[in-house]
Amino acid sequence: MTNLIQLGKQAKETAYQLGGMDTKTKNSLLLQMADELEKQTSLILTANEKDLAQATANNISETMQDRLRLTPERIKEMAEGIRQVATLPDPIGEVDKMWKNEDGLMIGNQRVPLGVVGIIYESRPNVTTDAASLCFKTGNAVILRGGKEAFHSNQVLVKTLQQALEKNGASPYAIQFVDDVSRETAGKLMKLNDYLDVLIPRGGVNLIKTVLATATVPVIETGTGNCHIYIDKDAQLEMATNIIVNAKCQRPSVCNAAETLLIHKDVADSFLPVIEKALNEYNVELRADERALAIFQQAIPASEEDWETEFLDYILAVKVVDSLDEAIQHINRYNTKHSESIISDNYFATQQFLKQVDAAAVYANASTRFTDGFVFGFGAEIGISTQKLHARGPMGLAELTSTKYIVYGDGQYRK
Amino acid sequence: MTNLIQLGKQAKETAYQLGGMDTKTKNSLLLQMADELEKQTSLILTANEKDLAQATANNISETMQDRLRLTPERIKEMAEGIRQVATLPDPIGEVDKMWKNEDGLMIGNQRVPLGVVGIIYESRPNVTTDAASLCFKTGNAVILRGGKEAFHSNQVLVKTLQQALEKNGASPYAIQFVDDVSRETAGKLMKLNDYLDVLIPRGGVNLIKTVLATATVPVIETGTGNCHIYIDKDAQLEMATNIIVNAKCQRPSVCNAAETLLIHKDVADSFLPVIEKALNEYNVELRADERALAIFQQAIPASEEDWETEFLDYILAVKVVDSLDEAIQHINRYNTKHSESIISDNYFATQQFLKQVDAAAVYANASTRFTDGFVFGFGAEIGISTQKLHARGPMGLAELTSTKYIVYGDGQYRK
Repeated sequence: MTNLIQLGKQAKETAYQLGGMDTKTKNSLLLQMADELEKQTSLILTANEKDLAQATANNISETMQDRLRLTPERIKEMAEGIRQVATLPDPIGEVDKMWKNEDGLMIGNQRVPLGVVGIIYESRPNVTTDAASLCFKTGNAVILRGGKEAFHSNQVLVKTLQQALEKNGASPYAIQFVDDVSRETAGKLMKLNDYLDVLIPRGGVNLIKTVLATATVPVIETGTGNCHIYIDKDAQLEMATNIIVNAKCQRPSVCNAAETLLIHKDVADSFLPVIEKALNEYNVELRADERALAIFQQAIPASEEDWETEFLDYILAVKVVDSLDEAIQHINRYNTKHSESIISDNYFATQQFLKQVDAAAVYANASTRFTDGFVFGFGAEIGISTQKLHARGPMGLAELTSTKYIVYGDGQYRK
Repeated sequence: MTNLIQLGKQAKETAYQLGGMDTKTKNSLLLQMADELEKQTSLILTANEKDLAQATANNISETMQDRLRLTPERIKEMAEGIRQVATLPDPIGEVDKMWKNEDGLMIGNQRVPLGVVGIIYESRPNVTTDAASLCFKTGNAVILRGGKEAFHSNQVLVKTLQQALEKNGASPYAIQFVDDVSRETAGKLMKLNDYLDVLIPRGGVNLIKTVLATATVPVIETGTGNCHIYIDKDAQLEMATNIIVNAKCQRPSVCNAAETLLIHKDVADSFLPVIEKALNEYNVELRADERALAIFQQAIPASEEDWETEFLDYILAVKVVDSLDEAIQHINRYNTKHSESIISDNYFATQQFLKQVDAAAVYANASTRFTDGFVFGFGAEIGISTQKLHARGPMGLAELTSTKYIVYGDGQYRK
């Protein structure tokens, strides 16, 4: 069984070194990691085959197997991802502002690493290299605990990154792997307060819930997105149709896809048939409230549960509302504080929506699919925070840092 | 028994109103609260007398009774504190930056309230009005759970603030009080995830530990300070003496007071006798390692426990170290990540200390006593965070806020 205390100690010691490592060294090590990854392609593919064989034996769906599958191209993409991280500006050491206080102290607020970051994930093996490189760039030691489906792939990926570090004289403990996928060990990791500064779960709603209920380590909640599009009475039909089709169908399995369409009663009769036709091309199942049901050609009644469900599939809940206020109330009641959008030509309606809707990202006249660290221009993304503390919305490198006050005095004591 | 769910629902509903309340209205209500507090002085003093009688019956120390005691002057000070909060700039609504992304979306990062803030505290009744006014100013609803010693005082203080809100047409649920001081209810408050956005404990180390171990609501850890002063071999004797006397003796009961003195071996023989003499004037008890013990006139041997203890008293642990590196290692091992200071004329020694010491505030040539929201120039302080997530160091109004991305599009969908 993995000795988490041992991993924690190693991580903490290494974190102090990483905190002081200059950007050039970190970037050079990242490039070495990328090269090593490509060099070890056949080793990685062999490990991945073990996971795939296991998946076949366990009758895992083809969609899931595809997520798990590595190919030479995908490994090359992972390496490119790491090289990309090397090109990003390093936030560590930045002093956001510095001022002189009344005592003549020079007080600066400097970016420093968080320390030791734990990541619990269940998604594709590329999370391993993504998360490891982003944590490394920001001077954090990372402890990775992936899902059992990708165990062999993750293990060899971490070993490869560690080899690159060791070959170049750096500590392999910067990137560590929990090689025990038992729930018991996951539970212990969530309570490893003496060594972990933060825990970031990446995965489905059940994983997130378990971590939130169990962890005593500070957690950054990510990812679940019950997102809404509200079509106002003053919306343009073509724009509304384009946006709802995009938000639902471009990639339904991701957290910024739309799950519910709310539409103002004044335009429901004219808009919904057009929207239904457009969604039909993607075979979207419509689950509608009574009023929408009367308009659609083909739909089933929505249940209370549908309003709160993140379908992650070609399913859309649809509700006709009497007013903008009702739409906002519905959203604030059922949403997961991720991404919400209003389609409207009306200045005051859009301003009210942007102001009153409680979510990480609130849009006027754009698809919710844009909530993404790369799209926002951060050059990276470690996840999308749906909590209000520390980070909210897409998290880039800056969100993997903390700050400390550095204070230059000349003998001051407090009077 | 307090119905926490009920309090939570009321708080959450009110939080949406508060989030949209303009600054003038909030400031005007704060001034009404201050006036009401002064107007109700006799009512407040009567309640306070009940708490004091209870304290006498329970043989509470005179120091503790003094903390608990309210007088007309102290109530006036509390009211002045609220008026001061009204004069501070309102961070809510600020857009720290706004940019246009590659898709032509205008993306702004706007400050919004956290929502509902829970405060668990055990200190003086003035925390009630302090915390309430800071949360109100930042558009947060607050649920206050004070200690049982100040129960009657806290209760009437909250009622007074609520009256001021109601008289002026605002919801009293902006500021609510848990009128049940049982541990069971405190435990439930710590798990009130559906309604609380953050929980801030303010009090002693035991309270903080309990909250950290129990809470599933996101917590901001505050307050415990095992702070160090390190006197380098290139330090000036007079400056070093002034700073250590100040850091230890000016107010030993607060978290930014120094608890351990580390001194370089090269200056121990010449400095320690002078420092001992200066500390003698305050009857400071010295707990020294072997080498310091051999130099001091009067000291007792330090135990391992002393290095990790926040004495909050006229007690100082003293250790002679061989090098700056040893000092930094000692600090990073034993500190609570609060405030640390080096006294040195040497440029490289101070830079290394500022870089390598892991704490919320790291000083060169100044007393640790300066770690304080008012001293730093924030105009307020809700506590001093010793964690790395969300806020680190003195927390002012900005630290009681979150952000949301507001995105202005003109029909964009994701390609």
